[in-house]
Amino acid sequence: MNEVRLGIVGLGNMGGAHADNVLAGKIPRLRLTAVADENAEKVNRYPQAKGFATAGEMIASGEIDAILIATPHYSHTTIGIDALNAGLHVLVEKPISVHKADCEKLIAAHKSTDQVFAAMFNQRTDPYYIKLREMIQSGELGEIRRASWTITDWFRTYLYYASGGWRATWGGEGGGVLLNQCPHNLDLWYWFFGRPSRVRAFCHISRYHDIEVEDDVTAYMEYPSGMHGTFITSTGEAPGTNRLEVVGEQGRVVIEDNKFLYTRNETRMSDFSKTVDAMYSRPPVWNVEIPLSGHGGQHVEILRNFTAAILDKEPLIAPAEEGIHSVELANAMLLSSARSETLEMPFDGAEYESWLKKKIAESTFVKKTVEVKASDFTLSFAH
Amino acid sequence: MNEVRLGIVGLGNMGGAHADNVLAGKIPRLRLTAVADENAEKVNRYPQAKGFATAGEMIASGEIDAILIATPHYSHTTIGIDALNAGLHVLVEKPISVHKADCEKLIAAHKSTDQVFAAMFNQRTDPYYIKLREMIQSGELGEIRRASWTITDWFRTYLYYASGGWRATWGGEGGGVLLNQCPHNLDLWYWFFGRPSRVRAFCHISRYHDIEVEDDVTAYMEYPSGMHGTFITSTGEAPGTNRLEVVGEQGRVVIEDNKFLYTRNETRMSDFSKTVDAMYSRPPVWNVEIPLSGHGGQHVEILRNFTAAILDKEPLIAPAEEGIHSVELANAMLLSSARSETLEMPFDGAEYESWLKKKIAESTFVKKTVEVKASDFTLSFAH
Repeated sequence: MNEVRLGIVGLGNMGGAHADNVLAGKIPRLRLTAVADENAEKVNRYPQAKGFATAGEMIASGEIDAILIATPHYSHTTIGIDALNAGLHVLVEKPISVHKADCEKLIAAHKSTDQVFAAMFNQRTDPYYIKLREMIQSGELGEIRRASWTITDWFRTYLYYASGGWRATWGGEGGGVLLNQCPHNLDLWYWFFGRPSRVRAFCHISRYHDIEVEDDVTAYMEYPSGMHGTFITSTGEAPGTNRLEVVGEQGRVVIEDNKFLYTRNETRMSDFSKTVDAMYSRPPVWNVEIPLSGHGGQHVEILRNFTAAILDKEPLIAPAEEGIHSVELANAMLLSSARSETLEMPFDGAEYESWLKKKIAESTFVKKTVEVKASDFTLSFAH
Repeated sequence: MNEVRLGIVGLGNMGGAHADNVLAGKIPRLRLTAVADENAEKVNRYPQAKGFATAGEMIASGEIDAILIATPHYSHTTIGIDALNAGLHVLVEKPISVHKADCEKLIAAHKSTDQVFAAMFNQRTDPYYIKLREMIQSGELGEIRRASWTITDWFRTYLYYASGGWRATWGGEGGGVLLNQCPHNLDLWYWFFGRPSRVRAFCHISRYHDIEVEDDVTAYMEYPSGMHGTFITSTGEAPGTNRLEVVGEQGRVVIEDNKFLYTRNETRMSDFSKTVDAMYSRPPVWNVEIPLSGHGGQHVEILRNFTAAILDKEPLIAPAEEGIHSVELANAMLLSSARSETLEMPFDGAEYESWLKKKIAESTFVKKTVEVKASDFTLSFAH
């Protein structure tokens, strides 16, 4: 095999963008041979590929080696399982599933190591985040003591939420900003710091918009190591902030406004505190600005890596198995907030599923929707 | 009366600094006529003033019109009440008392409007904070939606805590970073935003130092208006951060690194969200840097204002009655954390007092202390 025949299911904003990237030849050795969407008009936009009305037909068609799943969240699990069972390589959009139990089901369907199973965590290709992770993993930053990520620049208008009946509903997306916008940030958070031992979150439902799910969250997390952190997000704030601060014994990194600033302690802060013969002095520092150019290959790079994983056994940037972590964090925040209590991790996935099903069953929310003209979707993943 | 005869009780770091400022003639019409400290050596450093061993003797001496109380925290209440009962004008260091019930007792002793009763909230003289408050109060920023203050640059060494047996103990200071370093920040927080309706805090005891009280805190607060905020502080972090971010409907202010940055939305964010015919666009902004020079008169300015309040009836910058707010916030954070629950405000001051007395009674902590040479104290209030 010297090329991969790709089918894309779900031709919404993301699926369409991926199809366009493949058709534009941005990913050598990856060919779009099929598309599937219940909306025939969208399917007809891609005459170069064979069109299907359903994922099932496309999976059974023999026209594809690999599937990219870009449908609404809940069906990631069902389509993903079908595709894995059919022996296809699978690339799934974020979140891999809506809740932890579904993630486990989906991951369990991945039985063969010959099948490549990846997730679209394109922000893992960003040199800023790669550099930070390197500094954490190498020990350069020392033991991590605190992290604070304020990521409130996911501004979304009323029209955005009105543009689809499924949007920002328990039944349609299974959550709001945590499930739709933040999977990337939560994935990176876990990629940097691992699993917290306790989570306390304050999720505000319908704070800025006429929706039934959370559009504004402040979460506090504690780690087995003693590290703690805050994660603050919102789709209502403008201009919005995207500032990630990580404090280790060896200094502080701030990523903000396309800058990577490292203030490096010449002596580890706790060692300095214990040994210096002074009450108020501080470790001498270096102010380091680490030059980084651009924000990496993003979606195209994930597609390239997926293709190379299939053809050359290149290691995956984002194995789908790791997609459970961001879902687990999002679920934990919603559950902690709903119960007004600190949640010990890991929580029981079945319990969360019951809670979510109850939210769906009890929902009386009537979503106002409007037809919208094509919007400049590239603005939506400007992070 | 054309000058004020001042007595200072407590000649530790702060009391000594105030005495030096007065003796240096930095405050016209304010004369240091007496000092009191149980340590005779410290008293003898001020031959220009009459020396006393106790506050009581100084208050009864007839040598002073006004007293500045710079003793350890607990005695602010008792000395303050004595001085007010004796008819003196009173300026009390922060915190005005250790807990809410003591604040109420102290404030109740202030019966005559002819007596000036002020608190040393010198950071209220900082043009950065004055400007921010103006922008909030005038409505320039619009309705406030979120505030986040990360104030982790209160770095203190082991030697600092070892320098006094009372330091960072429940019996000696009644708390740690919240009672000793943060009263200024908590005062400003309340000065900007008023009283929260709910507080959830995570106070870490002895995280960075060998002490029995909190040296690291993350707190989350919600307001009746729907505003919420985080307050993150620590005496263990270096280099430490001091970044105050305030988000209103009209834009965002960030105060950090001697800069006052205002990103102003041309349209209020929620109005824009509701009316724009687009899914992903954002309100156009102005990037505004507001030039401010210096950080104000600080302690000297509070002393000048106190003097002018006595002699000219100038309104106080920081009436002592307002000193209860920062104490209430600090107490609420400690209580919320101890109970692992969200605290509804206002809480019962007597209940807090019982909790604190129990902490003192049950303390088995043995403080290691060492004699220290004079340290560069000016470093300690570099905020």
